[in-house]
Parts: sequence; structure tokens; C-alpha cells
Amino acid sequence: MTTATRVQPVDLAKAYRLLNHGPVTLVSSALHGQRNLMAASWAMPLDFDPPKVAVVIDRNTYTRELIEGSGLFALNIPTRAIATQVLAAGSCSGRTQDKFATLGIETFVGNTEGLPLVIGCAGWLECRVLPESHNQQRYDLFIAEVTAAWADSDIFSNGHWHFDQEQQHTLHYMAGGEFFATGEAFKVMP
Amino acid sequence: MTTATRVQPVDLAKAYRLLNHGPVTLVSSALHGQRNLMAASWAMPLDFDPPKVAVVIDRNTYTRELIEGSGLFALNIPTRAIATQVLAAGSCSGRTQDKFATLGIETFVGNTEGLPLVIGCAGWLECRVLPESHNQQRYDLFIAEVTAAWADSDIFSNGHWHFDQEQQHTLHYMAGGEFFATGEAFKVMP
Repeated sequence: MTTATRVQPVDLAKAYRLLNHGPVTLVSSALHGQRNLMAASWAMPLDFDPPKVAVVIDRNTYTRELIEGSGLFALNIPTRAIATQVLAAGSCSGRTQDKFATLGIETFVGNTEGLPLVIGCAGWLECRVLPESHNQQRYDLFIAEVTAAWADSDIFSNGHWHFDQEQQHTLHYMAGGEFFATGEAFKVMP
Repeated sequence: MTTATRVQPVDLAKAYRLLNHGPVTLVSSALHGQRNLMAASWAMPLDFDPPKVAVVIDRNTYTRELIEGSGLFALNIPTRAIATQVLAAGSCSGRTQDKFATLGIETFVGNTEGLPLVIGCAGWLECRVLPESHNQQRYDLFIAEVTAAWADSDIFSNGHWHFDQEQQHTLHYMAGGEFFATGEAFKVMP
């Protein structure tokens, strides 16, 4: 599991690299003392510097209410170690329970007061919504600027992933509880 | 390599599964007898049925001109077998050359007349742009409806990927020529 000493800041110009390979994310949010967590595969970088992201947040989710109220969310990049919690976070609603407590998920706080970041993840992007009402209403699409980024230095450092242990690999979601781990790294020479 | 007999239609309601795990894509386009190909990691599903996608197409690319002219593009999901061509397609411009010819990339046509689909890919999404001028101008973000989807039945069938051979795995792009192959599949029980 992540320890506080391994959480290192990521240069904002390199923050897109936490998301560039298309991993599943956990979207965390908070408002007026309430907090929630949902899984989202439909997230991607939208710009390099200042970094922006796009993410789909369904209008029926509790997370949507919290984000529309606060204008803030975090994209947490989970590892295989917490795949069970990722699936569970995507399979129940936070309206009637605190998923963090139910799922035994611990959190820490980065630069954004009150915004929970999930321990057991490999990277974290703190995001501020750029209000785009049309996209939000029509497509459930949120665009946000990344205001801070962090990584577990055991897994991501100097702008590169290094997945040494099986439980540290990031995840790609398919459907019906089926995941792929991020696989073999290889380099192509131009 | 893909043979025509292995290209099978994918039910549109399952088309998102070609893209859900966050693979790198090749964006193919054509206009008035010109055609082009670029690599794009910033692509994601946006809706299930009818399926929509979101993809970032930089304003300086030749592909952007072709897509703005035709309102059409395809997202091709490449395999490791053509990783070298994926990197090359993302590293040169099609303004002054036909990248398909330069890179030795062969194509076929699906349902959309004149729209090239790349042989050697595992899946194909034919897309029609939903004009959203603000997104296109401000964020280089294109939203499109998927009008047809296809998969190499050796690699994707009945709504599921099955990567049996190393060269058949889809790809996730990092930076600087560094890729990850889609890795081990595993299932989490709720």
C-alpha cells in the first residue's frame, strides 16, 4: 500500500502521463462534509500544459451532485492491489453509504482542502472543473484543469511508469468485472 | 495480419468495448481522394447506445483538415504487430506524403464509402462527427457517433477480447516511443 513518504509531486507538464495509457480511474469528490467515490473508464487527457482532462460522469450518480456542487474532483489511478474495491466502487451508490468506510478505503489529502485521494493508487490528479454546461448536460462530459498531480514514486517517477510487482500494475476495465492489467512495456525506435 | 474473412461486425451496443480499456488508436480519414492516418491516445467512449466517442484531433494536423471537410473518421485499434507503424504514423505529417504508402499500410473499406480501415488492427469504429464547434475550436475535441464497428474475430468476439498471441495484443501509449501491451486479463467477483 502507498505510504505518505512515497507520494511525490508530479510536474504538471508530465501529469498527462498518469492517464495517457488509458487506465481505469476512481473519481473522488466531496461537498459539505459528504464524500464519494466512483469508477470511471471514460477519462482521458485533453491537453498537456496546463494539463486538462475529460471524464464522463453520469447524471444519475451521487458523484455528479458532489462535483456540480464543488467544481472539484480527483482522478485516482488504482493498482491491481485494490481491483476488488474498484469494481465495488463502480457497483454501488454513495447516496446511502460512505463507500470509503464500506469498502475499507483510506484516503489522504493533497493540495485541495477536503478532497480525498485514495491510498493504494499509483497516481492522483486533482482537478478543477472548467464549466461547460452544454457538454455536461448533453453528454455527461466534464472538462477540468489539473491543479496538482502526485504519484507513488515506487511505481511512477521521472515521468515514467515502472511496474515491478504484479500488484502495482494499473488497470484497464472491460465489462462484467473483467479487467486487464497494464502489460509488458516495450520501446519502438523511430 | 487481418484477413477479410476475419473482419466481423460488432453489435453497436457493444462497440464501446473496443475502446473501453484505453488502447491507443489510429485515426484514419479521407476527403476528395486524399487520405491520412494519425495516432491518437486521447480517445474514449462517450456513450453506449447509440455509441459515441470523444477524440482529440490537434488543429495543426492534416487529419483535422480532412475530418472537418468530410465529417467522418475511423478509430482503428492497432495490435503489437504494427506498433512500429503506429509510432511512425504519429511522428510524420500526411500533408506531403501518403502515409499508407510510405508505411506500407494496407486498408479495406467498411460501411463508409472511401473511409480507409487499417489492416493489422484488432477493431475498427466508423464514426460520423456530431458538430460541436465550441469543443473543436477550444479544446480540439471531437465528438462523434459510431455508425459501424468491426473486429478481427480471432482477437475480439461476442463482446470480449481474447489476446492469445503476443502480436495480437492491443497497445497503450506512454511517450517517446514507449508502449505497454494490454496485459493479463483477470476477473473480479462482486
